[in-house]
Amino acid sequence: MDGQSQTDLETAMRALATRAKDASRKLLGVTGAQKNRVLSRVAEALRGPAGDRVIEDNAKDLRAGEAAGLSAAMLDRLKLDRKRVDGIARAVEEIVALPDPVGAVESMRVLANGLQVGQMRVPLGVIAMVYEARPNVTIDAAALCLKSSNACILRGGKEAFHSNIALSKVFAQALEAEGLPAACVSLVPTTERAATLALLGMAGLIDVVIPRGGEGLIRFVTEHARVPVIQHYKGVCHAYIDGDAELEMARRITLNAKAQRPGVCNALETLLVDAACAATVLPEISRSLREAGVELRGDARACALSPGMKAADESDWDTEYLDMVLSVAVVDGLDGALAHIAKHGSNHTEVIVTRNYEHAQRFIREVDASAVFVNASTRFNDGGELGLGAEIGISTTKLHAYGPMGLRELTTLKWIAYGDGQVRS
Amino acid sequence: MDGQSQTDLETAMRALATRAKDASRKLLGVTGAQKNRVLSRVAEALRGPAGDRVIEDNAKDLRAGEAAGLSAAMLDRLKLDRKRVDGIARAVEEIVALPDPVGAVESMRVLANGLQVGQMRVPLGVIAMVYEARPNVTIDAAALCLKSSNACILRGGKEAFHSNIALSKVFAQALEAEGLPAACVSLVPTTERAATLALLGMAGLIDVVIPRGGEGLIRFVTEHARVPVIQHYKGVCHAYIDGDAELEMARRITLNAKAQRPGVCNALETLLVDAACAATVLPEISRSLREAGVELRGDARACALSPGMKAADESDWDTEYLDMVLSVAVVDGLDGALAHIAKHGSNHTEVIVTRNYEHAQRFIREVDASAVFVNASTRFNDGGELGLGAEIGISTTKLHAYGPMGLRELTTLKWIAYGDGQVRS
Repeated sequence: MDGQSQTDLETAMRALATRAKDASRKLLGVTGAQKNRVLSRVAEALRGPAGDRVIEDNAKDLRAGEAAGLSAAMLDRLKLDRKRVDGIARAVEEIVALPDPVGAVESMRVLANGLQVGQMRVPLGVIAMVYEARPNVTIDAAALCLKSSNACILRGGKEAFHSNIALSKVFAQALEAEGLPAACVSLVPTTERAATLALLGMAGLIDVVIPRGGEGLIRFVTEHARVPVIQHYKGVCHAYIDGDAELEMARRITLNAKAQRPGVCNALETLLVDAACAATVLPEISRSLREAGVELRGDARACALSPGMKAADESDWDTEYLDMVLSVAVVDGLDGALAHIAKHGSNHTEVIVTRNYEHAQRFIREVDASAVFVNASTRFNDGGELGLGAEIGISTTKLHAYGPMGLRELTTLKWIAYGDGQVRS
Repeated sequence: MDGQSQTDLETAMRALATRAKDASRKLLGVTGAQKNRVLSRVAEALRGPAGDRVIEDNAKDLRAGEAAGLSAAMLDRLKLDRKRVDGIARAVEEIVALPDPVGAVESMRVLANGLQVGQMRVPLGVIAMVYEARPNVTIDAAALCLKSSNACILRGGKEAFHSNIALSKVFAQALEAEGLPAACVSLVPTTERAATLALLGMAGLIDVVIPRGGEGLIRFVTEHARVPVIQHYKGVCHAYIDGDAELEMARRITLNAKAQRPGVCNALETLLVDAACAATVLPEISRSLREAGVELRGDARACALSPGMKAADESDWDTEYLDMVLSVAVVDGLDGALAHIAKHGSNHTEVIVTRNYEHAQRFIREVDASAVFVNASTRFNDGGELGLGAEIGISTTKLHAYGPMGLRELTTLKWIAYGDGQVRS
């Protein structure tokens, strides 16, 4: 790209972000009922002819993707049909049904001088979402941002460009039909990477960037952002089977965590087994996992106890397989497990299976992860399961939100006070 | 600096940050009583001979500062004497008396499947503080970080280098006397700027950087950080006097907000007066402000109503004077005030003086600032006043903490669950 068009692009992106900022101010005066009416219109439109047009435009992306040699898995994630569009509409209706987080006032109290102070939940302002070729994220993110009174700027994967334009038009029409600016939901109207770079530098206009996708995307955003980023990194989740764990419970949790849905970030990637029980536990659990179709890669002690297990190499302990593969290590008790997780964990989800009270409490206290569970599957680290409703992702950033991000995590608290002339002495 | 020493410096800083990270893991197993014993030892030491040595080393900084031609105000901020060191000790004792935020579990509940889930308050991990030549910040920050179970890396202004080394030694001795690693509180042992740059790039070792100081420092940190930053930018705070405000209340609040302590970030910098009442209100309030020694700089309408008022130029509306100077603008009602604040506000503290219920509610809802008050002085945006206890600063970042940051704001929430074998279906 030559210098001239680079400047034009930056100017255009700044104008887009400025419109989003102005729209975010408008959203401060909007009621929950208005927001819900917009979302209901979006769902209704998707179930009708507007949804059909989205499917037609998605077909363009699919043809281009095939021509470009996208993998079958990527094409599947990209594809929209009537059933999937109805699913997106249903997800929007579920967001309509969630309570509005904005305006709630927490811990209001009266100071000694009579000043009534508390904290009010308010939107963050303008949220930039940078994601890959999953068109459902376009509507999900827009709906969650609008419901939390944030304006959003969407930057989806270039492979889904036509689908995203069609989806964002549905949103724009619904907003305008309710008298709200279309700029409440903006799609970056180009596939140039420079547009993303321009957004990442707009401190003062963009309040937070949320990247969703593979590690490369998240590193790119983190490296270049001059505005705050909430990262959703990989989940290298562990389950530690403690010396006196109940075998049947350990087996059930391990199988569920690994095999129920292996392609998601809260799936199990490494099993740690206490040396004290490995000889009993490991052969049994290995058999069940193999019967379920899981490939096992173990350290020396694990391989010795589990005939046919492949040897893991060092990189296995840091790999998010997202597949029917599990690494297995034998560790020396709780301290060994804590050390392994401190070294290889990704601050996502960690589980202990134990009957020992003290070990349960130490694991809960000492493991640094967005979710730390005793005797339950890693798969429960999920906004829906934990009662947040729809989620925009699972943050592995400790600042602001650690774990699933629902509507509440898309807001912040400002201090408010009602006085009658109080001054400081 | 040549390439070799640059590499050495980076290696040394990475080693320091790694020790801090290890120390932060140790802190996960420490009780509140242990933390308080360390802090009490620090306070006790400061009140005794160790405090005297701090004062001696501070004298070296003062002599160097005088030789380098530091301003009288800077030398005053740098200076430690017995009274000030006792004041620092007292501040530490106040932190001892605050409740420990760590380990508290919020909103624990039982899901339909019997899984007991909640959120546990946990430290952030390693906090890097980058600040200027105020040696009291060294102990304040270290005490707040330790009380919230965070390890900290302190990078103070080079003018206070000897003072900071002496103060950090006091902390190291107290930590070691209680069997905790001295690396819980690390001082960057050089005044090289490259050391700060190295810290700002250490994603994975440093969980958050908190810069405190002038705008230049904060911009430098924000520009170079690859780790999350919580900014404490300037406070261009406004008070808006609404058309039907009570004159006496408006005068009292304006005077207190501007003149009670003009050098702090929650002091008033711009007064906005509704055109509907300006002819009555402005001459009166201007007289009181001038009598208090405040220089006034007004827009055309304000100058016309207040003889002797200087004309403000465009830069005045964005200036944090931190001095006995106030800019004054006449605006067209609430909408005019909201527009001015949206354009020139710094997301810090904004006040409306009004008797109009609807205006009060709209101001509270629509102004985007860390603190929005009705009929009270801007000076109440302060951790102590709002009941947080000691504060590490006032965040104008919306992510994580918006407003005063006390102990709670130096922690995050992780999800925990106690189960008895739950798996997802």
